[in-house]
Amino acid sequence: MDILIFSGSANPSLARAIADCVGVALGQRILTRFPDSELHVDIQQSVRGHDVYLVQSTSPPVDAHLMELLFLADACHRAGARRIAAIVPYFGYARQDRRGRGREAVGARITCDLFAAAHIERAVAVDLHTPELEGFMSIPLEHLSAIPFLAGAAAPMLSGDSVVVAPDLGGVKLAERYARSLNLPLAVVHKARLSGHEVEVRGIVGDVAGRAPVIVDDMVSTAGTVTAALRALIEAGAAPAALVVATHGLLVGEAVERLRTMPIRQIVFSDTVSASPQSSLPIQITSIAPLLAEAIKRLHNEQSLSDLIVHQ
Amino acid sequence: MDILIFSGSANPSLARAIADCVGVALGQRILTRFPDSELHVDIQQSVRGHDVYLVQSTSPPVDAHLMELLFLADACHRAGARRIAAIVPYFGYARQDRRGRGREAVGARITCDLFAAAHIERAVAVDLHTPELEGFMSIPLEHLSAIPFLAGAAAPMLSGDSVVVAPDLGGVKLAERYARSLNLPLAVVHKARLSGHEVEVRGIVGDVAGRAPVIVDDMVSTAGTVTAALRALIEAGAAPAALVVATHGLLVGEAVERLRTMPIRQIVFSDTVSASPQSSLPIQITSIAPLLAEAIKRLHNEQSLSDLIVHQ
Amino acid sequence: MDILIFSGSANPSLARAIADCVGVALGQRILTRFPDSELHVDIQQSVRGHDVYLVQSTSPPVDAHLMELLFLADACHRAGARRIAAIVPYFGYARQDRRGRGREAVGARITCDLFAAAHIERAVAVDLHTPELEGFMSIPLEHLSAIPFLAGAAAPMLSGDSVVVAPDLGGVKLAERYARSLNLPLAVVHKARLSGHEVEVRGIVGDVAGRAPVIVDDMVSTAGTVTAALRALIEAGAAPAALVVATHGLLVGEAVERLRTMPIRQIVFSDTVSASPQSSLPIQITSIAPLLAEAIKRLHNEQSLSDLIVHQ
Amino acid sequence: MDILIFSGSANPSLARAIADCVGVALGQRILTRFPDSELHVDIQQSVRGHDVYLVQSTSPPVDAHLMELLFLADACHRAGARRIAAIVPYFGYARQDRRGRGREAVGARITCDLFAAAHIERAVAVDLHTPELEGFMSIPLEHLSAIPFLAGAAAPMLSGDSVVVAPDLGGVKLAERYARSLNLPLAVVHKARLSGHEVEVRGIVGDVAGRAPVIVDDMVSTAGTVTAALRALIEAGAAPAALVVATHGLLVGEAVERLRTMPIRQIVFSDTVSASPQSSLPIQITSIAPLLAEAIKRLHNEQSLSDLIVHQ
Amino acid sequence: MDILIFSGSANPSLARAIADCVGVALGQRILTRFPDSELHVDIQQSVRGHDVYLVQSTSPPVDAHLMELLFLADACHRAGARRIAAIVPYFGYARQDRRGRGREAVGARITCDLFAAAHIERAVAVDLHTPELEGFMSIPLEHLSAIPFLAGAAAPMLSGDSVVVAPDLGGVKLAERYARSLNLPLAVVHKARLSGHEVEVRGIVGDVAGRAPVIVDDMVSTAGTVTAALRALIEAGAAPAALVVATHGLLVGEAVERLRTMPIRQIVFSDTVSASPQSSLPIQITSIAPLLAEAIKRLHNEQSLSDLIVHQ
Amino acid sequence: MDILIFSGSANPSLARAIADCVGVALGQRILTRFPDSELHVDIQQSVRGHDVYLVQSTSPPVDAHLMELLFLADACHRAGARRIAAIVPYFGYARQDRRGRGREAVGARITCDLFAAAHIERAVAVDLHTPELEGFMSIPLEHLSAIPFLAGAAAPMLSGDSVVVAPDLGGVKLAERYARSLNLPLAVVHKARLSGHEVEVRGIVGDVAGRAPVIVDDMVSTAGTVTAALRALIEAGAAPAALVVATHGLLVGEAVERLRTMPIRQIVFSDTVSASPQSSLPIQITSIAPLLAEAIKRLHNEQSLSDLIVHQ
Repeated sequence: MDILIFSGSANPSLARAIADCVGVALGQRILTRFPDSELHVDIQQSVRGHDVYLVQSTSPPVDAHLMELLFLADACHRAGARRIAAIVPYFGYARQDRRGRGREAVGARITCDLFAAAHIERAVAVDLHTPELEGFMSIPLEHLSAIPFLAGAAAPMLSGDSVVVAPDLGGVKLAERYARSLNLPLAVVHKARLSGHEVEVRGIVGDVAGRAPVIVDDMVSTAGTVTAALRALIEAGAAPAALVVATHGLLVGEAVERLRTMPIRQIVFSDTVSASPQSSLPIQITSIAPLLAEAIKRLHNEQSLSDLIVHQ
Repeated sequence: MDILIFSGSANPSLARAIADCVGVALGQRILTRFPDSELHVDIQQSVRGHDVYLVQSTSPPVDAHLMELLFLADACHRAGARRIAAIVPYFGYARQDRRGRGREAVGARITCDLFAAAHIERAVAVDLHTPELEGFMSIPLEHLSAIPFLAGAAAPMLSGDSVVVAPDLGGVKLAERYARSLNLPLAVVHKARLSGHEVEVRGIVGDVAGRAPVIVDDMVSTAGTVTAALRALIEAGAAPAALVVATHGLLVGEAVERLRTMPIRQIVFSDTVSASPQSSLPIQITSIAPLLAEAIKRLHNEQSLSDLIVHQ
Repeated sequence: MDILIFSGSANPSLARAIADCVGVALGQRILTRFPDSELHVDIQQSVRGHDVYLVQSTSPPVDAHLMELLFLADACHRAGARRIAAIVPYFGYARQDRRGRGREAVGARITCDLFAAAHIERAVAVDLHTPELEGFMSIPLEHLSAIPFLAGAAAPMLSGDSVVVAPDLGGVKLAERYARSLNLPLAVVHKARLSGHEVEVRGIVGDVAGRAPVIVDDMVSTAGTVTAALRALIEAGAAPAALVVATHGLLVGEAVERLRTMPIRQIVFSDTVSASPQSSLPIQITSIAPLLAEAIKRLHNEQSLSDLIVHQ
Repeated sequence: MDILIFSGSANPSLARAIADCVGVALGQRILTRFPDSELHVDIQQSVRGHDVYLVQSTSPPVDAHLMELLFLADACHRAGARRIAAIVPYFGYARQDRRGRGREAVGARITCDLFAAAHIERAVAVDLHTPELEGFMSIPLEHLSAIPFLAGAAAPMLSGDSVVVAPDLGGVKLAERYARSLNLPLAVVHKARLSGHEVEVRGIVGDVAGRAPVIVDDMVSTAGTVTAALRALIEAGAAPAALVVATHGLLVGEAVERLRTMPIRQIVFSDTVSASPQSSLPIQITSIAPLLAEAIKRLHNEQSLSDLIVHQ
Repeated sequence: MDILIFSGSANPSLARAIADCVGVALGQRILTRFPDSELHVDIQQSVRGHDVYLVQSTSPPVDAHLMELLFLADACHRAGARRIAAIVPYFGYARQDRRGRGREAVGARITCDLFAAAHIERAVAVDLHTPELEGFMSIPLEHLSAIPFLAGAAAPMLSGDSVVVAPDLGGVKLAERYARSLNLPLAVVHKARLSGHEVEVRGIVGDVAGRAPVIVDDMVSTAGTVTAALRALIEAGAAPAALVVATHGLLVGEAVERLRTMPIRQIVFSDTVSASPQSSLPIQITSIAPLLAEAIKRLHNEQSLSDLIVHQ
Repeated sequence: MDILIFSGSANPSLARAIADCVGVALGQRILTRFPDSELHVDIQQSVRGHDVYLVQSTSPPVDAHLMELLFLADACHRAGARRIAAIVPYFGYARQDRRGRGREAVGARITCDLFAAAHIERAVAVDLHTPELEGFMSIPLEHLSAIPFLAGAAAPMLSGDSVVVAPDLGGVKLAERYARSLNLPLAVVHKARLSGHEVEVRGIVGDVAGRAPVIVDDMVSTAGTVTAALRALIEAGAAPAALVVATHGLLVGEAVERLRTMPIRQIVFSDTVSASPQSSLPIQITSIAPLLAEAIKRLHNEQSLSDLIVHQ
């Protein structure tokens, strides 16, 4: 049985790279938006009896990309596909994982329920903001990590005395994995209220003075967290030229403006999110196509993915 | 128990009008789009134990409007709402009601499944393109019609010898209801292949010569159907100044350009779709807020909706 | 894996013909009705691990035939069948596709839900009265057409100047496919109210004078529609000896009496419905066993059915 | 909230009697069978927001009666009924409670799944052949007994030295409840193989010589069990004029012929099954309408049914 | 595809025996109970794409053993197993098959629903107390019997004039199967109220005087039923040295004390329940590992299990 | 409608306290364990039409307590309860929220699925270890916090210069809420690897020297985390007599031994877990019965719970 990979419109170049790594051509499909914005999906080749792999990051615009994935899955289901796997390199709405302050929706759960409604039976994601998403789904979710790829790309850029920095407390576990991989010490920037009187004092744990910071995170969205952390690091005497490493380079809102003004030597992102070229920022993209291709091949050949999966 | 009506962002003025007709204030909620396009919903008042009515047309951009509806429903569900009704004046994706030419998705069914996934238990729609959508849902769908309102608005505009015209065969049943309501004769424009040799000959059934056509349809989207029909009517000797009457005035793509060049005296739409002002077109909007308000009140007071429902 | 085909009692001769075309023997099963009318099903051979194909038209008596299908499916499911496909040449209750005039049941949706309850995972139907039934099901429904077979059977019976006639507006799309296939012109009989004063005037679109009508429809049930159309055609000067072509020859109620008195040269039905011999009518049955056999073989061998499926 | 009771066609006189006991008129509905045997259901009064009670025995023809119940439930569901209860005095297919001898369907489970598919949320049944049916359903099933009514009707017919007889081992528990109620001794007819050599020896436990047997059972279907038991009793010296008491008097197949030839003084049935008048048999019908009316009133008023329910 | 068998902690020696019969090693898994009693399951080898067979009796402590089975199933599901079969030699909670005397839970149905929630798709059980459990499950349940094994083990222990005895009415069908298999006569001990005045008179059907009783049952739990029957048999003149044969030797509560005082020559149990050695009782264990191994091999190779299944 | 509260066996004294606060008597029910460990549940009063509140911590033994909750829910469901709410003061298995290191089960999700299988429609929990559990459930989960109660109880025990301490990084958010409530500074003990060379160095953020630590956590299970943190605090010069404050005082394994040897002035737990008296430890129990009673009253009266819910 051939491996059939179809791509949504969120990140066709990643999909092509994955297909190349797998050694197949991307499946033929036509995605159309009618003038009234309605999506139309037409799969151009037989999927009957096949396992299909739908590559789609639910990156911005998240709703349109999510619906594309659901329509692709429905089209494959009705056309007789055997099993449908959603390969979601960047998983949108993952941060809406509970009601935080009132009568909110739990967006991550809605998304997972929509997957089920669309007959998706397996899912693959990369460096989820909320790893507990596994429990939001009834289907198996394989949680992979781009860290080995990104750490490998960052390694040659390191100066002698670098330090891996988690820009907030939520990022400590991820940062530990980077520190271990790069054999570097670790520091944590946090904004916990350290006293009942002071509000929002940003503190730093770990030795950063004179060291070149390697700020790591799962994603850089508006770059608010990263730039605030970097400012705190500089105040604390860190060496000025920072590295920023993150799996998902969304760069939305004021991100580019914010990053442009900071003393950042290099930014390393994976290609989970389709990047518009940013000549003004020193961004280097490291492809995780080999990782996702390997995952697809293992799923297809019914081989263990254990060594690819995030362990925490 | 109070009637709680919340509005999505698709058509807040219709929602307000409905709430006015019902005699309540619109429910307080905050809809936010984060810079990464992710939606955030926060209901600002208690819905616990209440029946809530979510007013949202899934008009363009359809995916974003649909997700808003799902998030509102999930937020209400988790906040303890008793029953959730979706009031969907314009129901997007209704035309994707089967696989027409291959390995397509059945978008209308996906939409219906998403409603169920979001805990929506009742739905109300107006002049559905595909009335069979009732069978796509497991929950009760009340199918209302704007025709009495639109016919009422069009009546004073009629000249002595008007004729109601269905612009294609699919619209005959709707046109019959208009003809009956306006006490006018009926004509049908169709493009059936009448011979094996000719392709797409557009013919007209019924007497239109010298009569002022009242072209009626469920929706005017790109206006392709309406303008083609009007051209055929003129060729067939119809009086030049047409009326166009439709429930849903989407006016996407080249619609405005197309309509502007045609001899149209007046266009009558309902307000199911939020219209941007089109000073270049003689559009008159007739609100169906009273209809939807009545439906909500009846649902709320557990009264029969039979006389409001489309019978065909 | 062998192809296992089991037949309900609705149309065993069609099932046998299908099995012959596939090149297998019909699966052994015992269908019993106890004296209290309760059905008992016993599959006489192992189905464990096999895909099974259950051939059953839900023709009259529709409830008994439907329950047979459900019992067969349940028996196969509990006996370890891998996947269960329902081959439903004539799909009963398809016309109850919405609530048309009040507090009705949506029989077509109930039927589809019962399929799901009985673990049926795939369905095949022929010339559905309501093609939207695809959206009533969550499972893939392959909608095939008998038109190529019926048109092929009718072709030698054509006189020089025939015209394909749709007996009502709902049948125009089907008639267009016949006209295209037979390379004949098309006419439409309709009973739309053409004026506000006249009631139920039956009109004809297209040139029928002097031509031999080929009335085509998806089904002939009580024959009311066909005979009324034929009467209108004769009034309009059509050549007297008509052909009647339909996929499903139910012939219930007064059908035989009605048809007997009309100037009909030949009636062509497929064998989706088990016909009692009607010596008084010039009926020719064209088997669609080859079509259904081909569909089963393709499903079984995981090959595309695209070219067999109705495209509209 | 009024009590709305609708009746299927299986036993309208019982339904009327129940409605009378409750003190309401039967709900208006139209049940039609089209010439093609398809059922059409139309509820003639508003059920919106009401609890409805659908009275329908799934007696022969079981499939048609079952489908009627499903259609009524679907119509009520779509018309906005609050909760739907199925009152099923005689529950067909109850004996198909497992696969007894091979690749059979489990008809009782199919039936229960169909109830769920039709949005039925509560069920009431009387003297189920298989009390384990409670576990076949996810919804609450209230299992009532007609024994108090039937024992009350039989009591005046008893001669001095009667004996309650279970006609087979499966009926012992039921017979014990009759014996307790009538304060009579108990005997059991059984056909267990008592030795490895003899086949089908029918034995009797308990003292029957000279006593008038009161044969009790849940149902009399073809009357095979009852007449065989009676023959054995007579051989064993029982007094000739027997009483036969059973909840469900189906009397299908050769039942009437069989019973006519036996020395039976009186037959007592409840009215769960609509009986055709059998002038040739001494049948007395005892209505359980008061029992079902009481159950409906309790369900409606949210009162305990504990003292009505079968305890075993 | 290899056969993967994993064992819960309920009966690892039976699981090992089954694996030996199948010719494979037991699958590697770690079952841990944390100090807070929470279970942790870790499957130590890849199950991706495999059918797995989970061997776990839900014997005491039933809740812990049931949860182990659910956790094993969930772990296999999330790790990509193709299909999960639960091999449940002893099925706990089977006796809670209806509400017997009020507002009880139906424990057997809860158990079956939990199986479904844990993605179990097939089940195998042995000599179920309630064979109707098949209908409690939507998935296929293969109901096997240990009788051939136990009868084979008991045969050499028989004296010349033995009699198979059912210790209560509920056990007659099982006892008939033993009697047929051992070619012995049958007797039944029962405690039916034989008169309205006497309470709980224990009677015996069949000839037991001077014969050696072989008391057979599906399980021996507290041994109350067996010892009461034996006492009645002795009173009735049965030969003193009884045999006791049962599939499930739970021996809970006072069972050992009760049995120790009775004139029992030999007790024959299968190994569905893990027995603690009881030097004080003459118990012989007959393994049903070959039966379960055969069932697993047939399921795995998609062969019929018909001849292994209990027919009643 | 009365408030009906039933208690499982996990913490009957808390349930009684809740009922007292609500002002009702606890509902009558009998929970039995048969000698074979099987649970039997019998609700002793009518629940028909009522909302019921089942109070049960799934504390050790977690499986038995969880099954009790499911049986209670099923019994209420079948007895006609309107809505079933599970009040789960301590929610077991909450830490198994993802697959952390291989082919594990996601115990928290299994638990949530079992709730759904048992017809539970609403849930209330207190200080969940994993707040994301909200997204594991489809039903609304109200996540309450005992912090106001525990902080209130701890306040009088504070010395002048106390410091709130989170014993690990996962507890920072909880600790912040305590610090805010008590108006105290905050410190964090963590064991992040701060350099690539050192392994498991436990560091402290915040000023603890000379201050009396108030170690706060969601639960104290084996007390390993708390005692390790306290040891690190003492090394860092904290004042010796610590306070330990936690919602759930499980005290399993070596907890008592560990805590006994530490310089702890006072331990403050809530009563979510039923504590065996520990005379050797200075434990003070603060009841959260008022909190849970308030939540139940609000749920019952359909009032907002917003101000009771954990906001993070």
